[in-house]
Amino acid sequence: MAKAVGGGSLLIAWQLKDKHVLIVGGGEVASQRIDSILTTDAHLTVLSPHDGLHPRTKRFIDEYTERITYNDRLFAGPEDLEGMDMVLTALDDVDISREICDMCRNARIPVNAADIPDSCDFYFGSQIRDGPLQIMISTNGNGPRMANLVKKKLQNALSGVEGPAITKVGQLREMLKIRAPGVGGELGKKRMKWMTDVCNTWGMEELALLDDMVMQKLLDDGWENDRVPSFAELGGRRQPADRTTPPTLSPAIGSTIGFFAGIVCTVIVLARRK
Amino acid sequence: MAKAVGGGSLLIAWQLKDKHVLIVGGGEVASQRIDSILTTDAHLTVLSPHDGLHPRTKRFIDEYTERITYNDRLFAGPEDLEGMDMVLTALDDVDISREICDMCRNARIPVNAADIPDSCDFYFGSQIRDGPLQIMISTNGNGPRMANLVKKKLQNALSGVEGPAITKVGQLREMLKIRAPGVGGELGKKRMKWMTDVCNTWGMEELALLDDMVMQKLLDDGWENDRVPSFAELGGRRQPADRTTPPTLSPAIGSTIGFFAGIVCTVIVLARRK
Repeated sequence: MAKAVGGGSLLIAWQLKDKHVLIVGGGEVASQRIDSILTTDAHLTVLSPHDGLHPRTKRFIDEYTERITYNDRLFAGPEDLEGMDMVLTALDDVDISREICDMCRNARIPVNAADIPDSCDFYFGSQIRDGPLQIMISTNGNGPRMANLVKKKLQNALSGVEGPAITKVGQLREMLKIRAPGVGGELGKKRMKWMTDVCNTWGMEELALLDDMVMQKLLDDGWENDRVPSFAELGGRRQPADRTTPPTLSPAIGSTIGFFAGIVCTVIVLARRK
Repeated sequence: MAKAVGGGSLLIAWQLKDKHVLIVGGGEVASQRIDSILTTDAHLTVLSPHDGLHPRTKRFIDEYTERITYNDRLFAGPEDLEGMDMVLTALDDVDISREICDMCRNARIPVNAADIPDSCDFYFGSQIRDGPLQIMISTNGNGPRMANLVKKKLQNALSGVEGPAITKVGQLREMLKIRAPGVGGELGKKRMKWMTDVCNTWGMEELALLDDMVMQKLLDDGWENDRVPSFAELGGRRQPADRTTPPTLSPAIGSTIGFFAGIVCTVIVLARRK
């Protein structure tokens, strides 16, 4: 059970559907915050004088008129926090940022202040998104650039099939819940176990190829009989793989070809000399 | 600027240093929650009758006596929430879980209820940790098993040098802040840019090899002259790489060796025949 404890954050996926988020500030950092919040289904209010808006902030405000309410003014006081579920400050003025953080803490509203880690309830990190798949990389304040370098490594490790596969697994799970409804209990455990078995048995690429018909077959043949039929058993066919890297010669094949080429060349050379 | 918006969560690194977290329940899921909270520096209270404790929960309670307060009883009411900054329920009884969630919402305490997504302020996901580096994988409720499969892919993409490199970058940043103190402003921007340049110029393995002496040189020679000397320039030497995979023969070398082996064999065979 030994493991490094302490010193870390609790990485969580905060739910903001239909919630209200206030961003105080309009510069470059504010535009990054808007980008993050647009990932969720929150209503967003941006407070900033117009001349302080970064071009990207402006574009967001113009493009997402239904999701962003823009007020062309400075932060006015605690009344601006009313009805807010989360507040993000992105201001050059550290003192005002700290004041807003204190007000939020009094009102028990989660708050992040850009560049003032000790005033933050939570930090942001580098993110990867592929449909329902979201990945966050945090360095616990030790360097945003390093988070980006790690992000690139992780992006290279993903094939792009993960998002679609997760979407299909989510659909299969919903269909299973309709067939065997109820929250928790023995049935809930059985459902969870069967879904885990499916994910363990089928490859990520196979899961991504699931369609309604195959899902029905999987439930009829698999769930009802407490087993997991294979991809091939259900008539699944792999699409030709999308080659992103050129095929490479394996060292074994390379040396074998080389060996015979050596024989042939020697024979030719010797034959000519005769 | 086009990108898929909506439908996602806000992935954040929640700060729990010296905060108080309540876990209601003691089963297997509770043991996972305790594990997650031990990553942070929070004080933890576990509420559960003793006969409901999972062996792993028991071990945590026995081992981390200074960090975990254990109460051998059921949840009693809103008074149990007093002074709490976060509440996690891990109960089989969905109705009691929902009641606790409602109480938390009234008291504006962030809450997660295992297996009841619509009552949660936030979700958990699969996590990777390497010192200051933390990575979270969320499928937005589409399947914990899939998050684990993605986690394995990402783990394989990491060399293990990332955590130490990030630690060293954090130390360099602290040393730079002592040399050029102050929050925000032009100096803050200059510091951030120089740190970014260092991370871009030096390789991850080189950063991991930084020691106090090299950091001083880097600051004297680099920061003071607004440049980034290379690793070699500062006398850095790479340690022999820790080979975790056996060296492999490249196809080009393999076929060359094969070619000459073919020549040699043919000559020998022909020489014998003479």
